[in-house]
Amino acid sequence: LIRNAKMSKVYLVGAGPGDPELLTLKAAKVLKRAEVILYDRLVSRQVLEQANPWAEQISVGKLCGQQQQTQQRILALLLHYARQGKTVVRLKGGDPLVFGRGAEEWLFLRQQGIEVEIVVGITSATAVPGLAGIPLTFRGLSSAFVVATGHCQDADEQDWSRLASVETLVILMGVGRREAIAQSLIAAGRAPKEPVAFIERGTTSEERVVLSTLSDVAQGKAMIECPAIFVVGEVVKLRESLTAETISSNAEMTQHRPSRVLS
Amino acid sequence: LIRNAKMSKVYLVGAGPGDPELLTLKAAKVLKRAEVILYDRLVSRQVLEQANPWAEQISVGKLCGQQQQTQQRILALLLHYARQGKTVVRLKGGDPLVFGRGAEEWLFLRQQGIEVEIVVGITSATAVPGLAGIPLTFRGLSSAFVVATGHCQDADEQDWSRLASVETLVILMGVGRREAIAQSLIAAGRAPKEPVAFIERGTTSEERVVLSTLSDVAQGKAMIECPAIFVVGEVVKLRESLTAETISSNAEMTQHRPSRVLS
Repeated sequence: LIRNAKMSKVYLVGAGPGDPELLTLKAAKVLKRAEVILYDRLVSRQVLEQANPWAEQISVGKLCGQQQQTQQRILALLLHYARQGKTVVRLKGGDPLVFGRGAEEWLFLRQQGIEVEIVVGITSATAVPGLAGIPLTFRGLSSAFVVATGHCQDADEQDWSRLASVETLVILMGVGRREAIAQSLIAAGRAPKEPVAFIERGTTSEERVVLSTLSDVAQGKAMIECPAIFVVGEVVKLRESLTAETISSNAEMTQHRPSRVLS
Repeated sequence: LIRNAKMSKVYLVGAGPGDPELLTLKAAKVLKRAEVILYDRLVSRQVLEQANPWAEQISVGKLCGQQQQTQQRILALLLHYARQGKTVVRLKGGDPLVFGRGAEEWLFLRQQGIEVEIVVGITSATAVPGLAGIPLTFRGLSSAFVVATGHCQDADEQDWSRLASVETLVILMGVGRREAIAQSLIAAGRAPKEPVAFIERGTTSEERVVLSTLSDVAQGKAMIECPAIFVVGEVVKLRESLTAETISSNAEMTQHRPSRVLS
């Protein structure tokens, strides 16, 4: 059996949260060298424009309900191109190892004898709330935050009662199940009045923030477009002060002015 | 009262986890334009070397036990240089809003009428475990992770029983209190045999990983140099498979070989 005659490296690369300037120097360098790029649906067009223009770009975005088949195809493609000796970039939104099965792809490739290099990226879980004026930690308000998937397709359903005791929650892929999640968190003891935020298209110029409360979300009153980052906790209230308009000439009078609830 | 005649912007910038290639394109650009840089102790020399060589570089690293005084000085310096109309970069390790009082600095500056631009960065909480072969999420093992500070100086002590029910824990600034933290987690129901990892100087060529168990840490058996990232959970076991040496010519036989316990 003659194979693996020429083996290459697969770069498992984080594309960051959306804004192409939030790519790392290393990711930008690797994208310039790539011969084949397998990218997810959440990777922005502007990020792909940073890549070697002669690279073969293959969309491997997952459609709802077809995750398993798609994942098998991704593994097969990775192996196919790696065995051709190509410089392969597997480009994933955010960080390649925070959800999205990046670690499974890494494990598979190592088991096939293929070298993998990880290029970590900025996860949307921290970047998107932060840029929207919702820092996940703040002395006296939040000394810990939990990041969880709200995805309905996963076999192992999230046990929200185990997460509800952490001050701040960041839920990725939770828009579709937001009512059930909010109901579970209230059932687990979170205050119904607790502030929540959904941030759509975070870090981009098309960002939209929807502020609400757990009880309103539980009652289906929050209209959100998928995908969005779902944040629960008192830190949501900081947005008002952090994003208030600055009045440079009158600094002493700048108080906690109301910011746009929808922006 | 004539002041604020010329106001500038303060950039609150994340320096990432250590490796200078893990700076974002935006952070690199802003550093090149900076006239004054106020940087923390955890920011690496190689990152500072990316900055405008004529920029005034001021170390504002916090010494243990003097946080409060140091923070007052940082706020005063930020205000001083911003009011001079300088392009000021406040450079923090990791992400500027994940711990480290970045959001407090943002709030202070906005209340003083000074414009702030946030340049998010890669937090060590996700990058350092990931690059060490410890992904924080993995189907069937971990669908959520909590990031917490273990810092002893904070007035509000961490209530570990509220965090212990999350599958994976990442503790920053927890090396000094690791015995008490491990004891608290066991008291809250975590298995004493549960694997833990400490990663010193993560993302750099001098990375060192110490693998242990909660009970050994609780008994003071793990020798760690500060600072390090402290990870608790079954995902720690993935490191063995993910970092095993690759044998390209004999892929089928590459099994879960033991990796170096200390590297």
